[in-house]
Amino acid sequence: MFLRAKFLQLEADKPVAIFNIEDAAELGIKPLDRVELSFGKDKVVAIVNIAKKIVREGEIGLYEEIQEHLDVKPDEKVHVQTAPPPKSMAFIKRKLLGHTLTPKEIHAIIVDTVHHRLSDIELTAFVTSLYNKGMTMGEIASLSESMTKTGRSLNLRTKAVYDKHSIGGCPGDKTTIVVVPIVAAAGLTIPKTSSRAITSPAGSADRVECIMPVNLSLDEVRRVVNKTNACMVWGGAVDLAPADDIFIKIEYPLSIDPFLLPSVMSKKKCVNAKYLVIDIPTGRETKIRTKEEFENLACEFIQLGKKLGIKVDCISTFADQPIGHAVGPMMEAREALSTVMHGHGPPDLVDKATTLAGVLLGFAGAKDGKQAALEILKSGKAYKKLREIIEAQGGNPDIKPEDLHSGKYVAEFKSSKSGKVLWISNKGIDIIARDAGAPRDKGAGIYFKKKLGDKVRKGEVLFEIYAEKNNKLSRAIENVRKLDVIGVGKERGMLLDEVPHAEEDRYFILER
Amino acid sequence: MFLRAKFLQLEADKPVAIFNIEDAAELGIKPLDRVELSFGKDKVVAIVNIAKKIVREGEIGLYEEIQEHLDVKPDEKVHVQTAPPPKSMAFIKRKLLGHTLTPKEIHAIIVDTVHHRLSDIELTAFVTSLYNKGMTMGEIASLSESMTKTGRSLNLRTKAVYDKHSIGGCPGDKTTIVVVPIVAAAGLTIPKTSSRAITSPAGSADRVECIMPVNLSLDEVRRVVNKTNACMVWGGAVDLAPADDIFIKIEYPLSIDPFLLPSVMSKKKCVNAKYLVIDIPTGRETKIRTKEEFENLACEFIQLGKKLGIKVDCISTFADQPIGHAVGPMMEAREALSTVMHGHGPPDLVDKATTLAGVLLGFAGAKDGKQAALEILKSGKAYKKLREIIEAQGGNPDIKPEDLHSGKYVAEFKSSKSGKVLWISNKGIDIIARDAGAPRDKGAGIYFKKKLGDKVRKGEVLFEIYAEKNNKLSRAIENVRKLDVIGVGKERGMLLDEVPHAEEDRYFILER
Repeated sequence: MFLRAKFLQLEADKPVAIFNIEDAAELGIKPLDRVELSFGKDKVVAIVNIAKKIVREGEIGLYEEIQEHLDVKPDEKVHVQTAPPPKSMAFIKRKLLGHTLTPKEIHAIIVDTVHHRLSDIELTAFVTSLYNKGMTMGEIASLSESMTKTGRSLNLRTKAVYDKHSIGGCPGDKTTIVVVPIVAAAGLTIPKTSSRAITSPAGSADRVECIMPVNLSLDEVRRVVNKTNACMVWGGAVDLAPADDIFIKIEYPLSIDPFLLPSVMSKKKCVNAKYLVIDIPTGRETKIRTKEEFENLACEFIQLGKKLGIKVDCISTFADQPIGHAVGPMMEAREALSTVMHGHGPPDLVDKATTLAGVLLGFAGAKDGKQAALEILKSGKAYKKLREIIEAQGGNPDIKPEDLHSGKYVAEFKSSKSGKVLWISNKGIDIIARDAGAPRDKGAGIYFKKKLGDKVRKGEVLFEIYAEKNNKLSRAIENVRKLDVIGVGKERGMLLDEVPHAEEDRYFILER
Repeated sequence: MFLRAKFLQLEADKPVAIFNIEDAAELGIKPLDRVELSFGKDKVVAIVNIAKKIVREGEIGLYEEIQEHLDVKPDEKVHVQTAPPPKSMAFIKRKLLGHTLTPKEIHAIIVDTVHHRLSDIELTAFVTSLYNKGMTMGEIASLSESMTKTGRSLNLRTKAVYDKHSIGGCPGDKTTIVVVPIVAAAGLTIPKTSSRAITSPAGSADRVECIMPVNLSLDEVRRVVNKTNACMVWGGAVDLAPADDIFIKIEYPLSIDPFLLPSVMSKKKCVNAKYLVIDIPTGRETKIRTKEEFENLACEFIQLGKKLGIKVDCISTFADQPIGHAVGPMMEAREALSTVMHGHGPPDLVDKATTLAGVLLGFAGAKDGKQAALEILKSGKAYKKLREIIEAQGGNPDIKPEDLHSGKYVAEFKSSKSGKVLWISNKGIDIIARDAGAPRDKGAGIYFKKKLGDKVRKGEVLFEIYAEKNNKLSRAIENVRKLDVIGVGKERGMLLDEVPHAEEDRYFILER
């Protein structure tokens, strides 16, 4: 059948063609069937959508991508014939049925995913089946490998690449900015790619961006690492494992994360990491809440690492309060920069950073890695390295903590009683810091004057909220009252929690 | 935030609003989040979509449905604020986690489904979780009841409503057209609603439509049934269980059908059926292939019937070849009309129809229901009743079989050897009849001159393909060679089947 091209001025991330309901019946096609469109010598397979009005009988509505691919002009006649579904649909169906997939089958699914050949319904069926049916370690390894192969790779001169990863869940975690210069100053290669925030108030890339540019191309990253042993860049700009971004779009609305392991490890594989330390924040309101959960996940990471040729060490870190005092990109960057610059800072930040860096130094042969890391930090070598990295990435190496400004709208929250800080709610912090504008408004966030165990007098300031816009500050203030961010008292009573009524609660950490 | 309305001239079955990527970041929203839009006093919750070009910063792209709901004009300012996801998302998540849902939770999901508040990703997560995790009989009953409550009901004067259903899978199954007049002629009330073809060459509604109008409103259906005890109408026009159509759109591309039971039974509940006979075609290439599968499904239907107050009887029918000789709407209607008119016809059709009708007459007290049904058919009473139904539905009661014309393009297929018909492939029949144009081209289809066990001489015609368009006939002919529709030989050898190489095979019966 020939149909007249109609341009819809629409963007989609998939090749969609819209048919009038009558033509669709004539062709015997239904929504999400596939058709092969041809114009001259060019051919493309499109996903079928059906409409009653915007596309009239005899017309075919085309999205930009298809117009460009076929190089067709409005009203020119496009030939349409039915096409089979992508081969990988049969494999998704096998997973739906509970079968274990072979590496070849998984690779076919990932290839069709990154080429945008699968509809949202088909992708969702895959993601939920992985979640419902579980995966064997073999399947997880195949997913990791296929996600690596379908992305780009950082090919460095050195063979011994070190890396660090946190699965997230602890607010204010600016550890990366301290770890990377320590490790690089020790002479190890650590090409750190980080993500931006998905559900949190700041991702590592958002924090680092306050200090230096992070949107580097793969060539630029290679140049920076070859020069300084390190980088701190946004992974999204270098497109390491594009399948992951597509799966995140499905996982986010469902608040599930079956791709945690392959997502993390495929990206490490793309930078050719050989030694990896994984930080697994463990606490009441994080992804991983108990020692058992930590051990299970750690085992999976280590096993997967073995299959992929990466030596993995996992550490469980205390995550029942923010790291340091600051939450929000700009204030976190300031705290981290100050710590590296002066060689000391908030004790939990220093302890966590030197522990993580220490594991990597240990891989490289250090007897007491943590002590070695601490010395590098204190000696000023880490600061010197950080300035090198900033300069190589195109930033100002003379940048000072005081150049990093928090938002000008501020609200203080004082304690209504005397006592000790008994608990801090990460969940409340995330919501309020995002209300205040983080991560988009880089100066927005929360600064804690008091942390767990600190003595507090009635009327003393517990924390401050910073915002760049007044209306966002108001929104955040409003939620502080509802969310009970911090608890002060003589000692913690037996009552831990209470469910007043079953409210829908959507707190989900997708950071990886 | 206020944004200027931009009209996109797009239809969607959901309330979608498109934001520029910058405004989305400012609002802190992601694709598939919810926003509340307000204009004057009107409010509506929309699903978020994000674009870079079609909607500029400061604009909000609106689909027709939202424009109408808010009564807004282009460039008028719409207020936007974030809104929580629909409550039912928490329940879908519970099912994803493997929990059993309560009736209240299921009802919330079905209500949000019919009000188009759930995105395709969310609906797919629900459908695949039901498929992956299975359902308790309590959940199936709740689904059926909610799907009934969210639809319309046929309230008839009589309390004893009889009904018949086939789960499909056997081509040429025109049994309904014979059963309904027999049962109604016996004085029982049988308001039969049928579906159109989804994946087959003809649904009952497609067949009946060749004889009389089937797109009746609910009021018209009620009038017809009150007058004649029966009707044969398209269920889609009376909107009995709208949730089902929404779920079918998800099930079709995935080739799964977890809603079979609630879909069938909710529609029977909508017509207030008290007695129901379910035909479960059983054979090599149908949904139900073995006695065990039949018994399991039958038990579920009977149990579900008990919960819903419907007395159910299930029968397994031979389904390794078409019923009668004809496949395709017009030819099937002709065969059925002729059978009712003359009181006799193809033996398998008469046997199946009187068996099914007999079960219903048995429910009403007949000692030998099948014999009673056969007598009504032979006596001409069924034909008289059929004419009444045709007239009441607005058709021509004098319509004759010879008024029903098959397509004018015909191809005969002759046997290349002598022997007996050893097998007929339903799958091949479905594909070829659809290639020939069925169900859209009503005259298209296949007419079998020979059936299982019939003696065949070399050169004798096995079957004919009819089409309304020459190019469709060619397409069908081409596939006959590939698909091996009918097997003739001395006796069946031991070789049943062979998989030459793993070709993707998408044969899926979604008819219910």
